Amino acid sequence: MAVPVWSVDPRTGKPRAGDGPVATEATPEQVDAAVRAAAAALPALADRAARARLLRGAAALLEDSAGAIIAAADAETALGTPRLTGELARTAFQLRTFADVVGEGAFLDVIIDHPDPQAVPIPRPDLRRYKIPLGVVAVYAASNFPLAFSVPGGDTASALAAGCPVVVKAHPDHPATSELCADVLRRAAVDAGLPADTVVLLHGFQAGVDLVRHPLVAAAGFTGSIPGGRALFDAAAARPRPIPFHGELGSLNPVVVTEAAAAERAEQIGTGLAGSFTLGTGQFCTKPGLVLAPAGDGGDQLVAALTGAARQAAAGVLLDARMRENFLKGAAARVALPGVTAPVTPGAGEDAQDAGGGDGAGQAVRAGYVVVDAADLTEQGAYDLLLEECFGPFTVIVRYADAAALDAVLDRLPGNLTATAHLGAAEAGEDGGPAADLLRRLTALAGRVLVNGWPTGVAVTGAQHHGGPYPATTSTSTSVGATAIERWLRPVAYQDTPPALLPPELRDGNPLGLPRRVDGVKE
Amino acid sequence: MAVPVWSVDPRTGKPRAGDGPVATEATPEQVDAAVRAAAAALPALADRAARARLLRGAAALLEDSAGAIIAAADAETALGTPRLTGELARTAFQLRTFADVVGEGAFLDVIIDHPDPQAVPIPRPDLRRYKIPLGVVAVYAASNFPLAFSVPGGDTASALAAGCPVVVKAHPDHPATSELCADVLRRAAVDAGLPADTVVLLHGFQAGVDLVRHPLVAAAGFTGSIPGGRALFDAAAARPRPIPFHGELGSLNPVVVTEAAAAERAEQIGTGLAGSFTLGTGQFCTKPGLVLAPAGDGGDQLVAALTGAARQAAAGVLLDARMRENFLKGAAARVALPGVTAPVTPGAGEDAQDAGGGDGAGQAVRAGYVVVDAADLTEQGAYDLLLEECFGPFTVIVRYADAAALDAVLDRLPGNLTATAHLGAAEAGEDGGPAADLLRRLTALAGRVLVNGWPTGVAVTGAQHHGGPYPATTSTSTSVGATAIERWLRPVAYQDTPPALLPPELRDGNPLGLPRRVDGVKE
Repeated sequence: MAVPVWSVDPRTGKPRAGDGPVATEATPEQVDAAVRAAAAALPALADRAARARLLRGAAALLEDSAGAIIAAADAETALGTPRLTGELARTAFQLRTFADVVGEGAFLDVIIDHPDPQAVPIPRPDLRRYKIPLGVVAVYAASNFPLAFSVPGGDTASALAAGCPVVVKAHPDHPATSELCADVLRRAAVDAGLPADTVVLLHGFQAGVDLVRHPLVAAAGFTGSIPGGRALFDAAAARPRPIPFHGELGSLNPVVVTEAAAAERAEQIGTGLAGSFTLGTGQFCTKPGLVLAPAGDGGDQLVAALTGAARQAAAGVLLDARMRENFLKGAAARVALPGVTAPVTPGAGEDAQDAGGGDGAGQAVRAGYVVVDAADLTEQGAYDLLLEECFGPFTVIVRYADAAALDAVLDRLPGNLTATAHLGAAEAGEDGGPAADLLRRLTALAGRVLVNGWPTGVAVTGAQHHGGPYPATTSTSTSVGATAIERWLRPVAYQDTPPALLPPELRDGNPLGLPRRVDGVKE
Repeated sequence: MAVPVWSVDPRTGKPRAGDGPVATEATPEQVDAAVRAAAAALPALADRAARARLLRGAAALLEDSAGAIIAAADAETALGTPRLTGELARTAFQLRTFADVVGEGAFLDVIIDHPDPQAVPIPRPDLRRYKIPLGVVAVYAASNFPLAFSVPGGDTASALAAGCPVVVKAHPDHPATSELCADVLRRAAVDAGLPADTVVLLHGFQAGVDLVRHPLVAAAGFTGSIPGGRALFDAAAARPRPIPFHGELGSLNPVVVTEAAAAERAEQIGTGLAGSFTLGTGQFCTKPGLVLAPAGDGGDQLVAALTGAARQAAAGVLLDARMRENFLKGAAARVALPGVTAPVTPGAGEDAQDAGGGDGAGQAVRAGYVVVDAADLTEQGAYDLLLEECFGPFTVIVRYADAAALDAVLDRLPGNLTATAHLGAAEAGEDGGPAADLLRRLTALAGRVLVNGWPTGVAVTGAQHHGGPYPATTSTSTSVGATAIERWLRPVAYQDTPPALLPPELRDGNPLGLPRRVDGVKE
């Protein structure tokens, strides 16, 4: 019995009117067939030029289909046309960025050491090393980015750039969008002279579990919740042949506001924070979820500014009904903690306007935040709930009396994607001193450290790192930026291999013009 | 009750005469104290110059203490003075190589992207990324390399180079050697101005399990058996906060001899194989354990040459009594398979001379090998035993009738550290063709591919890759060569950070003169 997959409008909580099911959940046999079909595409993907064509072609086709894709994504996610238009542009940019990465070839990490019969302690053979694709990559799409972290997103783009076929497990929040995007990628593959099954799409929870266990799956990328990601990580590790599992799971993204920063910029920081934690209805993985603000006047003014700005934040519709329920329950449980105050109470939206349309009465949620004293967080207990991510437009302000109280809270934080410091002007100019110590503390907690900014917004560039100590990510790698390609490769070295049999990347004379390291010197 | 750790002489199977216990097994409290002491050394290791001094100093002290260390290692492992002298030179070379790696700084992988307010699709902030040490690294020493893959070995050297303190779990086969080497490393640390606890040594099986579970341990390196390595890998993955586990577990190291190669060089290949599989009494992780030789005259001659040479191989003493027992049982079970022939039967040494000394009567083992038809290996069954590593001086010759039979066996092989092709002269000169196809097949099976050579002998150099698909290693990384340092680092990016607060590695003007990538261009 095929289980139908429906496209649900979160503004109404109902399947989209007039349409039948989008697809069916994949059976174990269909998962197996999908992985085998993708695996058969591996040899064709050895052609780097074809990979670059595929990525550029996919970007162009995505732009050509922008109208239909954005309409479907908005109907399935309620993220709105402006945000989704930006996300599509980002996704196309990312695909083209990885085409550039493929073309340049630095990711191959070519190292050549010619033989040295005089080497000490023993003669050295001819050794030439580069990186090859791991094989079929399983990609688990995110709820909150139906494009940039889903079917045509960074995991897929970087895996294809590496030369790996991709089997995507669609997120149930946007199956129709996923189908449209998979169609784009498959057409782009064929246009590039590659098999359509270079990218295969699957639906269904169990299909996702079967996928990570499939013997021919060589690695996985995941963006989602801690429980879901950990379950798949565990399944990947428990395989007879374990595979790398690059999961982005959850992050509090702590922000520390120093006393000087609060004294100088309370208003600006308070309103900036309101903008960041409510952006996209608080559904970014980099949402600042815990803000350490000083006790005293500066901190009070920051809280006042935050309250004013957060009250003005438009209500919004969350991605699905389960998230809405989790947000309302989770926020209420935090508000109910003894001694915690809620200057702006999070909760359900109350009128039809909240939903951004006439049909959505009651589906929207309103942003809110709580304030707690740092002393409540220094020991394990009920307040630990405040150290867990609450997905949606909610944040926690922790008031600290002094450096010791601040340190005690930082000591208790889990790993994060980002950590931010807001510093006073003099602190920011000091070489060494307490601000430098603070940045060192934050570096230990996160994969990206910001000063005087907000963590939402993740630039796609070479120097980006989107990852961090567990549970931020399950590996040391990034899922955004050029180095994300490293996840899908493994090195191989050729010893004393005749020139004619060497891959062209490793031949003398550098016939492909690659960046290489030869006998210790960069070419 | 402290459990004593004894130094046992494998030539006699008895504790070394006249000496008391070498150490005691670490209690859970001692493991905790060791990890905390090592963790406290982390900030001091941020000084790259001190790390280089530590590594060079350790190399010099190791050479200064060579006499005592080699004597202890020989008494504990029976590997012999010539081999251990070479291993000590290799170990010192490796320490100095990683000092060079630290000094050059390419491993920091610095990428700087200046801000671009005009960037599409959105303005780009200032982003600067490099790599930082993960934290305390647990190193599990190998039985078969008491120096080069043990206390002062590649895992320790690369972790220290990365800036990580190290807690080593000694191998029970060489506790006295381990103590001497730990003393060298700790003295070198102090001489370099670093805490002695930059390196801490532990003994005991349970201590090893406790170590991988310790919350402050950030990564682990392991060289050993599949069951032991998998158990620790599973423990690392099951932690509340999983950590990277870089384990080298087991490898068959297949060799394919083509019909042309056998026709041209049967004698040379047969004797070369005998030398490689009996080297170090067959106790190398790169020992060729499965050799595919053609049916027919060339293959017959190869087998004849192998038989002659293998019969001449000196008997040797294995590292410990358990290995000896496993070797004798394992080899006997393989010899007993129906239809398998054993031109040279492996077994126990029969006279006192075998042991290399008068005390060792009965402790030595003799090399041997079996021959099986490829057809027996094409389906799952009792012959699968021949596809498992048999540690010690033993190998398996698989005779194949044609390309299809060869392919069918290659299809059934697990992952390997190495795979080797012996080709005829014409094949080696052909661009494309069957030899190229064969190398592609072998590349899928291993991390190092050799042509017309033998896999034993692993050069310490930039282009080396010592790792491969599971069970060869549990990750995609290498444990030998300059890139082994990558295992102990994680990237961190700084966004819009004031110049004075940036690590010097990331400042404009490149004050440390590092190899960097700035706005896409190499510095």
